[in-house]
Amino acid sequence: MAQKPAIPKGTRDFSPIEMAKRNFIFDTIKSVFLKYGYQPIETPAMENLSTLMGKYGEEGDKLLFKILNSGDFLSKVNDQVLTEKNSIKTTTQISEKGLRYDLTVPFARFVVQHQNDITFPFKRYQIQPVWRADRPQKGRYREFYQCDVDVVGSDSLMNEVELIQIVDDVYKSLNINVVVKLNNRKILTGIAEIIGEADKIVDITVAIDKLDKIGLDKVNEELRQKNLSENAIEKLQPIIKLEGTNAEKIHTLKTVLAQSETGLKGVDEVEKVFEYLSTLDVTTEVELDLTLARGLNYYTGAIFEVKALDVQIGSITGGGRYDDLTGIFGLKDVSGVGISFGADRIYDVMNTLDLYPKESIVSTQLLFINFGEKEALYSLKSLQKVRAAGIKAELYPDAAKMKKQMNYANKKEISFVAMAGEDEINAGKITLKNMTTGDQQLVTIEEAIEIIK
Amino acid sequence: MAQKPAIPKGTRDFSPIEMAKRNFIFDTIKSVFLKYGYQPIETPAMENLSTLMGKYGEEGDKLLFKILNSGDFLSKVNDQVLTEKNSIKTTTQISEKGLRYDLTVPFARFVVQHQNDITFPFKRYQIQPVWRADRPQKGRYREFYQCDVDVVGSDSLMNEVELIQIVDDVYKSLNINVVVKLNNRKILTGIAEIIGEADKIVDITVAIDKLDKIGLDKVNEELRQKNLSENAIEKLQPIIKLEGTNAEKIHTLKTVLAQSETGLKGVDEVEKVFEYLSTLDVTTEVELDLTLARGLNYYTGAIFEVKALDVQIGSITGGGRYDDLTGIFGLKDVSGVGISFGADRIYDVMNTLDLYPKESIVSTQLLFINFGEKEALYSLKSLQKVRAAGIKAELYPDAAKMKKQMNYANKKEISFVAMAGEDEINAGKITLKNMTTGDQQLVTIEEAIEIIK
Repeated sequence: MAQKPAIPKGTRDFSPIEMAKRNFIFDTIKSVFLKYGYQPIETPAMENLSTLMGKYGEEGDKLLFKILNSGDFLSKVNDQVLTEKNSIKTTTQISEKGLRYDLTVPFARFVVQHQNDITFPFKRYQIQPVWRADRPQKGRYREFYQCDVDVVGSDSLMNEVELIQIVDDVYKSLNINVVVKLNNRKILTGIAEIIGEADKIVDITVAIDKLDKIGLDKVNEELRQKNLSENAIEKLQPIIKLEGTNAEKIHTLKTVLAQSETGLKGVDEVEKVFEYLSTLDVTTEVELDLTLARGLNYYTGAIFEVKALDVQIGSITGGGRYDDLTGIFGLKDVSGVGISFGADRIYDVMNTLDLYPKESIVSTQLLFINFGEKEALYSLKSLQKVRAAGIKAELYPDAAKMKKQMNYANKKEISFVAMAGEDEINAGKITLKNMTTGDQQLVTIEEAIEIIK
Repeated sequence: MAQKPAIPKGTRDFSPIEMAKRNFIFDTIKSVFLKYGYQPIETPAMENLSTLMGKYGEEGDKLLFKILNSGDFLSKVNDQVLTEKNSIKTTTQISEKGLRYDLTVPFARFVVQHQNDITFPFKRYQIQPVWRADRPQKGRYREFYQCDVDVVGSDSLMNEVELIQIVDDVYKSLNINVVVKLNNRKILTGIAEIIGEADKIVDITVAIDKLDKIGLDKVNEELRQKNLSENAIEKLQPIIKLEGTNAEKIHTLKTVLAQSETGLKGVDEVEKVFEYLSTLDVTTEVELDLTLARGLNYYTGAIFEVKALDVQIGSITGGGRYDDLTGIFGLKDVSGVGISFGADRIYDVMNTLDLYPKESIVSTQLLFINFGEKEALYSLKSLQKVRAAGIKAELYPDAAKMKKQMNYANKKEISFVAMAGEDEINAGKITLKNMTTGDQQLVTIEEAIEIIK
C-alpha cells in the first residue's frame, strides 16, 4: 500500500517560488557580509554531544536533536539503566552526536580547533540551518536558518560600529524599516553594583521593560515582590524613568553610575559607538535601551537587537560582545562580537509586507514551443545561442497540445515564448511572443536575445 | 577542564578558502541548471523514517542516521524488547525520524505531497547535504553534498539530451575533461531475454566490465562460474566483444537483439539520443557502454555516468530514467529522468588538478590600515564609498603595529592596502598600495575605486 507522504512537524519544504524569495534574502545578506570583508565558513550538521551539551542550559540540552549510535547500540548499555527505563542516563550511552542548536558554539569550537590556521582578527560569516526540538508553533520551526556574522580576536569598538552598519545596509537592501536597540552589559552590571543587588539584574530589566504597559507604580511593586530593598528601588528610579535622546540618557547614566567603574566603562563604550555612528551615513535609528538583556550570562559588552517597525514580530536580529566564548574549549582571552540574522523571521516579514522586487523571482525567461521532432531540434540549436547569452531558456520536452504548452509558460510566469514551425525554420528565424503584451514578431535569434535582455 | 575540540569522524569543517572553492563549484552548477530552466527546491534534513526505510535496501536502512525521539523516549518501549537488548526492534520504538540519505527519495515524496501545486513537466534542481553512516575513508564522507537535477512528468528523449548538454556545459565551465558513459536498461533487459537468463544480468555486466583487465577467456570462465549455460555464453559473445564507434555498436546490437522487442526499443532510444546530440555543439565524448549498470532495479531507460579523464576517481556524476519513482508514495505513471553531480568528488578533482580560476577565490580587495581613532573614522567614511561601488573592503579594527596589519593583508591575500594619516586626511586623499607590485600612490577615493575595479 502506498504511504501518504508527510514531513516531520516543525519542518518545511520550499517550492521554487519560495526558494527564489529565500535566496533573495540570503544573497542580499551574503553580499553585504562580503562587502565588509567577512568570509564564509561551514561546520557539520552533526557535532559531538560533548561539544553541545551544557552550553545552552538544562532546557537547551533537552531541545537538542540527538543521533542514535549506529549498529547494535544497546549492547553496551548498562542493564540497570535499561531496567529502570531511565531515558536520560540511557541517552548518554546510546547517542554520541547531536544536530547543531545554533552557529555560535560550533563557531567557538571551530576557532579553537583551527586556531593555528586562522588569521586574527577573524571575520567570518556562516549561513546554515540549525535544529531545535522545540514545540512547533506559528513562526517557530524545528529546522531554521541562522545567518551569523562575527569578528573574534579584536576588542575594538569599530567592530560594534561595523555590525550596526551591516544591519543598516542589510535592511535598507531588503527595504525593511527597523530600529536597532543597543545596550551594554557593563551598564547593567554597574546598575546592579550601585544598588547592591548584583544577582537581581535580570528581574530588574524584566520589570523595567514593563513600564510602558503597566506604569511606574506597578513596576516598583514588581521589584518589591522580587525582594529588592526600598533603598535599591529608590536608587533605581532615574534608571526606570530614563528617557529622552540617547545623549540625554547617557548624561543621566553618567550621574547615576558615578560610583561604578564598570558602569561608567559601559556608558563610555555606548557613547563612543554613537559618536562614531554620527560621522557615518547610518540612517537606521539606533536607540539605547537598558531593558535589552538577551543572553545576559554570555555577553560582556555591547548587546544588540533589531526590531521590524511595520510588523508585529519579535527580534529579527540580535547579538553582542562576548569576551570568553572560546574559553570552554581551552582558548582564553579571545574577545569577539557578532550578530545573528534570523532568516526565517525576515522571510515572514518580507512575505507579510510583500517586499520582494519583481525581478528577484524570475525563473525561465524564454520557452520554445515543441511542435515535433524536427522543430524541436531546430529549437535546441537556437537554445544554445540563447543560453550562451546568459538567458534562462527551455524547450517544452513533449510535442503536447499548444494550449498545454502555453499553460505551462503561464504557470511558470515565463515572459517570452518562441515558436519555430516550418516557415520559421526555412527563414532561419523564430516567432517571438511577449507573454505580457501578447505581441508577436518574426525575428532572428540574435534579435530575440536583444529583445529579451 | 577545557574540552579538546573535535568533530564527528567522516564530517568536515570548511575554511574560508575551502568555501570559496566549493562555492565556485556550486555556483557554476547552479547557473547551468538555471540556464536550462530548472528551478530550486529544498526539503528538510530530517524525514520520517517511514519515508526513508526500505528505499535503499537492507544495507541502506542500516546506513541511515536515526534521530532519537525527544523526552522520555524509553517509557513507551516494550519491556521484552529492552530485556532482550534487541537494538533493531528498539530502534523502531525510540526513533521516528532520520537524516536524508539522498535527494531522490525526498524529491519523490515532495512531488507526491505537492502534486496539486506543481506544474508538470516539473524541472527541479536541489543542492543539499545528505548523510550516511558509512565507514569513513578517503573520499567518502558521512556528510556530503549532492546536486540533483531532474525532470518528472515527461518521457521525451529531449530530456536525456538536455541532461547530457548540462553535463557538457558544467564540466566545460569547471574545466574538467570528462567522458559520458551511456547505457539503457532496456538493452540490458533485451540481452537477458535473448540468452534466457533474466536474473543474471548483473553478473553478466560485472563480468563483461572486466574484459580489458582479464581477457575474453577469463570473462567466459567467470560466466560459467555464475552458472550461465554454454548456449547463453555463446550468444553473449558479440555483446562481450562489442567495440568500435557508437554507430558500429548500435548496428551490432540491432542484429543481436533482433528477437527482443524491449531490447530494440532500448537501442532505438540510444540511437535517437546520439542523433539529436550530433546536431548540437556537445563536444564532450558520449560513449555507449553496456557495462554500465548502476542502480539497475531502479532505472527503466537511459543510464548515465560521467568519469573524469585526468584523475583516478570513481564516477563524478550519474543518473538515469525511472518510470515509477513516485509509485511508492501513491502517484503512478510519472516518468522522470535525472542526474546527480557529486560535489565532493568534483571538489577533490578540482583540488587535485588545481582548476580554480584565480578570481574565484578573491575575498577582501582593499584593507584600510588603522592608525588610530581619528584616522579610523576618516577611513570608515571612505569605506562607505568604496563598498557602495561594490568593492569588498575593510578597516583593520585595531590600531595595531603596521607590521601586524600588513601581515593580515598578506595572509588574507588582499590586493590593495589604503593608508590615511594626517597628510592624506588634510588632502582628502588616501595612499593606495598595490600589494602585488608594491607601488604606492596618493589618490582620491574615486580614483582608488577606478584602480581597484
